[in-house]
Amino acid sequence: MNTAQHAQLALLLEVASTPKPGNVDRWHDYPSLRFEHFLAGAVGAYDGLVAAMEGDAIGDAFATAIAGMSQQEGGNTQFGAILLLVPLIQAAASTELHPSGVDSVVRSTTIHDAIRFYESFEYVSVAVDDPPAELQELDVRRGREAADALRAQDLRLIDVMELSASYDGVAREWINGFERSFRAGEYIMAGDGTVLDNAASCFLELLAEEPDTFIVKQHDEETARDVTNRAVRVLDGESTPAAFADKLVEEGINPGTTADIIAGGLFIAVERGMGV
Amino acid sequence: MNTAQHAQLALLLEVASTPKPGNVDRWHDYPSLRFEHFLAGAVGAYDGLVAAMEGDAIGDAFATAIAGMSQQEGGNTQFGAILLLVPLIQAAASTELHPSGVDSVVRSTTIHDAIRFYESFEYVSVAVDDPPAELQELDVRRGREAADALRAQDLRLIDVMELSASYDGVAREWINGFERSFRAGEYIMAGDGTVLDNAASCFLELLAEEPDTFIVKQHDEETARDVTNRAVRVLDGESTPAAFADKLVEEGINPGTTADIIAGGLFIAVERGMGV
Repeated sequence: MNTAQHAQLALLLEVASTPKPGNVDRWHDYPSLRFEHFLAGAVGAYDGLVAAMEGDAIGDAFATAIAGMSQQEGGNTQFGAILLLVPLIQAAASTELHPSGVDSVVRSTTIHDAIRFYESFEYVSVAVDDPPAELQELDVRRGREAADALRAQDLRLIDVMELSASYDGVAREWINGFERSFRAGEYIMAGDGTVLDNAASCFLELLAEEPDTFIVKQHDEETARDVTNRAVRVLDGESTPAAFADKLVEEGINPGTTADIIAGGLFIAVERGMGV
Repeated sequence: MNTAQHAQLALLLEVASTPKPGNVDRWHDYPSLRFEHFLAGAVGAYDGLVAAMEGDAIGDAFATAIAGMSQQEGGNTQFGAILLLVPLIQAAASTELHPSGVDSVVRSTTIHDAIRFYESFEYVSVAVDDPPAELQELDVRRGREAADALRAQDLRLIDVMELSASYDGVAREWINGFERSFRAGEYIMAGDGTVLDNAASCFLELLAEEPDTFIVKQHDEETARDVTNRAVRVLDGESTPAAFADKLVEEGINPGTTADIIAGGLFIAVERGMGV
């Protein structure tokens, strides 16, 4: 398998690993966002993953992957996961799959990459909050309309990520050397269960660590903090992961950013030789 | 998505659809043949599916797909499904996805294709019975050792399939214009459930129709006939598909050929425009 295939496999292993409370997984669907949508998303994203491997501009590879991912009826399945995978793939293929390697990839992004990133929001509806007033011109929902503002402010894709890192856990990975993704990869490789069990267990650890920013966007800070506290209680044995998972789906609370980081971690593990 | 991606998606939808009694599916694993092995099999097979789409010789495309499929630790995951998909892909890409189109593809296979097919058995352990005494030289387990015998007897891949059609349900599709695969595709498209539910329901219909030849190989004719009768009783409402599925996994009885045909049917449905 090539590096892009490792990333595609990571997307598939991510959605298969269960329980990942609140997320679509092998045992859980939402009524209109279901397991098969994630399978189709992973198949459709492949050309963009290959583009990342072959050294295309990060923004071009990302836009291609998102356009392909969106060829299914569930809506946004793997936007955040792919935003982590594209630079990780490029680091693995061109320099080194190591925090400093991926850091140099993301620090090399350009205004062109930022524009293509914004365009990607036109393919699929992604949950985002209203930006602060001074950033309204840079609302991602403007899609390619924001191109002039990006050029005028000389914003590269890494700059866009810096602006959103305070409220977006994926953007935070971009500016933090993918710290949680690498940690997840190591955790998953070190586990003694199956890869799917190890990934699910890693998910719970990450969820207990800090509030999930996707929950903040879809609900609020308080809900996200509450979910983190509940994850801690599951780790303490006060409840089971399975019961927690059923409950979150019932409540419609989806810690999607934490799942994205699991996809990043799975890629790192597979790329570093973890067998499946 | 391109035609090869439709086939990859078909492999993924096949393993996800549940319950498919006796098979690995979204709800069922065997201890050493698990869901994640099928995910990796579908990812790894892709280059061979692309080769089929691009018009490579059927045997070359098949061998590439099987070599890629085998890059996981579960063993044989999708050998039979890929043997159906490769000519179906080529028919869809080059002539017409119709019984006569795929018939012309398989009737054009050569001795070279037969040799590559035999080689594919070297990548993975496939359940096969001892051949009749007069066919011992053509035992597929001989792998590329059988090349001389294939050449001496002037056997094209379609001839090999004719020789095994009496005891192999996939080979029978090759000589019957993929009759059951096309019927499965139509059944799945006509269903009013989700694609995964429609595929599972189609599986049960096919299983009730005739003994699964993979069960015959792994067990015997009687076991296969018994499973068919039990499938009929499930369709009659005397038992539930879920209970039947748990029971077959417990008994280690795997109607794998029927699952292969579901993969063929899913490809036909996706290729003909069924949305996911």
